[in-house]
Amino acid sequence: MKRTSRSKRLNILVSNDDGIDAPGIEALVKELQRIGKVTVVAPSKQQSAVGHAITMNYPLRVNPYYKNGTFFGYAVDGTPADCVKIAVKALLRKKPDILVSGVNHGSNTAISIIYSGTVSAATEGTILGVPSIAVSLTTYGPADFRYAAKFARKLALLVVENGLPEGTLLNVNVPPFPEKQIKGVLITRQGRAIWNDEFDARRDPANKEYYWLTGELEEVDTEIAFDQPAVRNKYVSVTPIHYDLTDYNMVQTMESWGIHKLK
Amino acid sequence: MKRTSRSKRLNILVSNDDGIDAPGIEALVKELQRIGKVTVVAPSKQQSAVGHAITMNYPLRVNPYYKNGTFFGYAVDGTPADCVKIAVKALLRKKPDILVSGVNHGSNTAISIIYSGTVSAATEGTILGVPSIAVSLTTYGPADFRYAAKFARKLALLVVENGLPEGTLLNVNVPPFPEKQIKGVLITRQGRAIWNDEFDARRDPANKEYYWLTGELEEVDTEIAFDQPAVRNKYVSVTPIHYDLTDYNMVQTMESWGIHKLK
Repeated sequence: MKRTSRSKRLNILVSNDDGIDAPGIEALVKELQRIGKVTVVAPSKQQSAVGHAITMNYPLRVNPYYKNGTFFGYAVDGTPADCVKIAVKALLRKKPDILVSGVNHGSNTAISIIYSGTVSAATEGTILGVPSIAVSLTTYGPADFRYAAKFARKLALLVVENGLPEGTLLNVNVPPFPEKQIKGVLITRQGRAIWNDEFDARRDPANKEYYWLTGELEEVDTEIAFDQPAVRNKYVSVTPIHYDLTDYNMVQTMESWGIHKLK
Repeated sequence: MKRTSRSKRLNILVSNDDGIDAPGIEALVKELQRIGKVTVVAPSKQQSAVGHAITMNYPLRVNPYYKNGTFFGYAVDGTPADCVKIAVKALLRKKPDILVSGVNHGSNTAISIIYSGTVSAATEGTILGVPSIAVSLTTYGPADFRYAAKFARKLALLVVENGLPEGTLLNVNVPPFPEKQIKGVLITRQGRAIWNDEFDARRDPANKEYYWLTGELEEVDTEIAFDQPAVRNKYVSVTPIHYDLTDYNMVQTMESWGIHKLK
């Protein structure tokens, strides 16, 4: 039975936030074409740190895009979430078997998850009922996306085989090392590190002030049960996440606040 | 003791996603000025559905803004999250006692929470260690923000008195009715409704296609333990939310997938 499901030709949707001409998406498509028919619907321009933005006040344009020798796809002048919505609701004839977002150039661990356009594309897929994975390579330097793409392919098959619960997606971070240096794969929790933001105030030629956001992700966690330490220690990190943001413990605690009498 | 803490003059940061000239933020500021010193740092333009976007590839501009007779503030040409980051990290001399985001014109219940710029401002405040509340009025029609603003003031005092756990914020939705028609206040969970998206394909004068996103939030939940039915039934809904997206149940389930052998 498993053999049958594995040999079925999958319909795969691919998106990202680095833009349709990024090298990470090309590496990913090449790997996924080995296991199915891949449709690429991705932003026409870089969309990092857009969070889960969607476009409502402007219409979207969709342009055919050819990546010579690799793929045909659609470039959308919108956000990653826009791309996935319009792919599933307007461009594709049937719902894809799986969505893979990435491979992002840069890590999406800890608090970065909530700023991430890569994760947002996979979140939108999940909302629309498509099993979804977000994949990031944890370096901002020169990048070789091949192992991350290969891992994404293997995980995609495992996800199709096992399914994902309603509302759950997988956030994957791959350390930037050759395959033989990768120590293994860990199922992790979202880390607790936050950005140590600073603003660099400068003056333009007209002497008017402007601010650049700078800062670093602070290391907080040490155990490899968390995403960031896992990749730091050369493990591939796979974190199941969801979008029910309710803090259930706090629902209990607040009963004692007398909030009901606030009206 | 409670009396003392209540009579302390609070430092209050206010932001929103409808823009600094929106009527909802003005109503909010007027109420909050009764309990403290209010600093407004808000987007110069409307920023709905931006999710948790931040600006990294462009510098931010900050312009002084006078709302005649009501407040002095700062207009930032960025997202709600940008506003809160730059307020806490560059503009304010000390960390505020509380942040209130809103009053948003339109509901932020169920899945809308993850698209919401209003919630994003409060999330950013929470990340930066400031107790934070997001407040929305659940109508897209003509709006009277006064009761929502008054409720926000009372809740702000309760939050300062009780504190919030690290990483937890409150998402408040107020139904658009006069105070005497409001039935009460409920502590709720994030609803499970999702948008029933559709794309309206049109042609421009040059016969090129473009797409408008349309759709409605489907009603799924019926119990007033969820945010959407609560407001539909004329209750103020207060939902504690957090940004640890880990799906802890799935962490357990995935142990059986053999994912460790994927490398």
